[in-house]
Amino acid sequence: MIIRELLVTPIAFRDPPLLNATGVHEPLALRCVLRLVVDGGVIGLGECGGDRSQLDRLTAVAPALAGLNVLETTRVARAIDAALPGESAMGRRAAFSAIEVACLDAAGRLLGQPVVSLLGGAVRDAVPYSAYLFYKWAGHPGSTPDEWGEALDPDGIVAQARTLIDEYGFGSIKLKGGVFPPDREIAAIRALREAFPDHPLRIDPNGAWTPATGRRVAAELDGILEYLEDPSWGLDALAEVSATARMPLATNMFVNSFDTIAPAVATDAVQVILGDHHYWGGLRLSRHLGTVCETLGLGLSMHSNSHLGITLAAMTHLAAATPNLTYACDTHYPWNLADDVVKPGVLRFEGGAVPVPEGPGLGVELDPDALERQHRLYVDSGRQVRDDTGYARRFDPGYDPALPRW
Amino acid sequence: MIIRELLVTPIAFRDPPLLNATGVHEPLALRCVLRLVVDGGVIGLGECGGDRSQLDRLTAVAPALAGLNVLETTRVARAIDAALPGESAMGRRAAFSAIEVACLDAAGRLLGQPVVSLLGGAVRDAVPYSAYLFYKWAGHPGSTPDEWGEALDPDGIVAQARTLIDEYGFGSIKLKGGVFPPDREIAAIRALREAFPDHPLRIDPNGAWTPATGRRVAAELDGILEYLEDPSWGLDALAEVSATARMPLATNMFVNSFDTIAPAVATDAVQVILGDHHYWGGLRLSRHLGTVCETLGLGLSMHSNSHLGITLAAMTHLAAATPNLTYACDTHYPWNLADDVVKPGVLRFEGGAVPVPEGPGLGVELDPDALERQHRLYVDSGRQVRDDTGYARRFDPGYDPALPRW
Repeated sequence: MIIRELLVTPIAFRDPPLLNATGVHEPLALRCVLRLVVDGGVIGLGECGGDRSQLDRLTAVAPALAGLNVLETTRVARAIDAALPGESAMGRRAAFSAIEVACLDAAGRLLGQPVVSLLGGAVRDAVPYSAYLFYKWAGHPGSTPDEWGEALDPDGIVAQARTLIDEYGFGSIKLKGGVFPPDREIAAIRALREAFPDHPLRIDPNGAWTPATGRRVAAELDGILEYLEDPSWGLDALAEVSATARMPLATNMFVNSFDTIAPAVATDAVQVILGDHHYWGGLRLSRHLGTVCETLGLGLSMHSNSHLGITLAAMTHLAAATPNLTYACDTHYPWNLADDVVKPGVLRFEGGAVPVPEGPGLGVELDPDALERQHRLYVDSGRQVRDDTGYARRFDPGYDPALPRW
Repeated sequence: MIIRELLVTPIAFRDPPLLNATGVHEPLALRCVLRLVVDGGVIGLGECGGDRSQLDRLTAVAPALAGLNVLETTRVARAIDAALPGESAMGRRAAFSAIEVACLDAAGRLLGQPVVSLLGGAVRDAVPYSAYLFYKWAGHPGSTPDEWGEALDPDGIVAQARTLIDEYGFGSIKLKGGVFPPDREIAAIRALREAFPDHPLRIDPNGAWTPATGRRVAAELDGILEYLEDPSWGLDALAEVSATARMPLATNMFVNSFDTIAPAVATDAVQVILGDHHYWGGLRLSRHLGTVCETLGLGLSMHSNSHLGITLAAMTHLAAATPNLTYACDTHYPWNLADDVVKPGVLRFEGGAVPVPEGPGLGVELDPDALERQHRLYVDSGRQVRDDTGYARRFDPGYDPALPRW
């Protein structure tokens, strides 16, 4: 159970031109793949964001992990804190979160138990995910259009939803908003409601609206949204929207650590928290978050960034173990799975849900050729950070990411 | 990892005449010892209260456990809920809590890991406990005085503290109050402060005081107590005391489940929660309680009832894994350890702290002869429930347990 070394491999994978409130997804998304080598040669897998700062953190903490027990993740957290003395709490958590998943994967492999069992056991055999819709260009400028096609208006969004639902069976829909003036996005939600009368709907403009606009959109979409995610910027603004909104407000942006929960509860700014094991401290503390939400009467959902299969497996084990995670989880996986680094066969959607992998640990295996391929893509790209705004400015030099915008 | 059967053995053990707000400890305290038999013959140990109602619950749920994985305690909880359809939430939790410990003990034994590692790993190698003082008679009426002697005034309490501290090295002191008029108990605390100027002090009258009395005692003991536990009855009364008290208020009585936390926080009724894995849902959920308290800025301590070594081991593993459990835990163990059912050698106090057992699981072994001896004592006693009030009335027929009393 003892850690020998941590191998960190930055990778890049193809990403469509997905639009959001601060720009456009670049042609390549960056991630890190972690291989935590444990006594006996067992390897625990992890996956996290691939920005240079995270890569540097992981590289810096790696030597501090040798000799620790993979089950003793609280000790791992302390070792990481000690190894990153100048780092912010958020940065230390990001490093720990990634490594904790690799620890539990290794532990599960060594013990012959799936990670979900280490977290208390599955309360559901498959985890429902939502169809995660994005406004998007037909393709990256200068490239041929991608398989998804353009989605810049209600018809395009409905078509995209249909593609995703036909392919994966999703039973819930989330639209990434904050891209166009609110009325245009309201129209898209209305079109989705008409096309999919029984699918719960959400929209997430990433804080792009003033509180007044947030209130207006909430009123217009009353009875249509299951929740409204981050309509405005900051907890005070969310509290203003929440005071008149009749649907729950959700956030992943402004409640993103345990110490940010109490202020949100005090003003009833949000009623649903989107957890994310990548920044809440890994799988165990994300499971604790379930109990915290239950204690405080908060709903619980799950946030996603662009990711591959190790992350999807981790999200699925966590969600399966969390009784009060009753909303379908977000995932970008359909946008990126073609470049996955795990061997195919385990991860699949059935009726919009991912069956919990049954093998030990996370239950997925790394494909070494795929890892090498995506690592080479990373190296050759020369990219080091995600920069949605910079990419948008290449095509619209005046693009201004300041929020709120409307 | 699969449960085969649950064996539940009620036991009795000798208990001194310890006084509290609703009576006197009877000559025998009752507990249940659980042996959870798992595939391969590994046995997980548990210990809990021995009242008839708990024994009946455990007997009723036992058949529902067969076939479950000991790591999958959330599933175990659900099976117990289903097997006890007419039971209160508190009763279901009590049954689950006991069984969960046995599950994790079995899991640890099977996996070769101490329970503390299953909970995330130890953040301290030994767990500090407090000297738990009681007003007491010299012995049970009709019996010869016990080794502890009488403690009915400040001198007796100080002498008892000295005995416990000399023997075990405790660095904190808790006095069970609510027995005598408050001024007499204030005098005892003042005498303890004089005799032990550096020991943190607590008093717990179990809700025996009106809010006005609670406020007065808090004012008189300002600067002397590290916290004041359950001075008054109910959260509203505690909030009244809290409004003027300068030390933290603590409770185990009125915040005793996750759904009772938010109301206490809303009125700032208490600032410290005493957890107890026997009624918070076992070790994993008690570990979650640590995160909940951290989230809400609440302090965390640990409650005790009369118990033996399986419980002490479980408390120690849990406390060792909980970073923000910064108060010394309560324990009755010194009062009862002579009748323990675990083999001696593992559990010991060093400087008031119990080193975390290092063996797999809880790290303690059942002594079958001792179990048989204490089970026989239970059977021969004919006792089925704890009744401190009834016992007090045998010597004072007019004894009235109604609270608040002062």
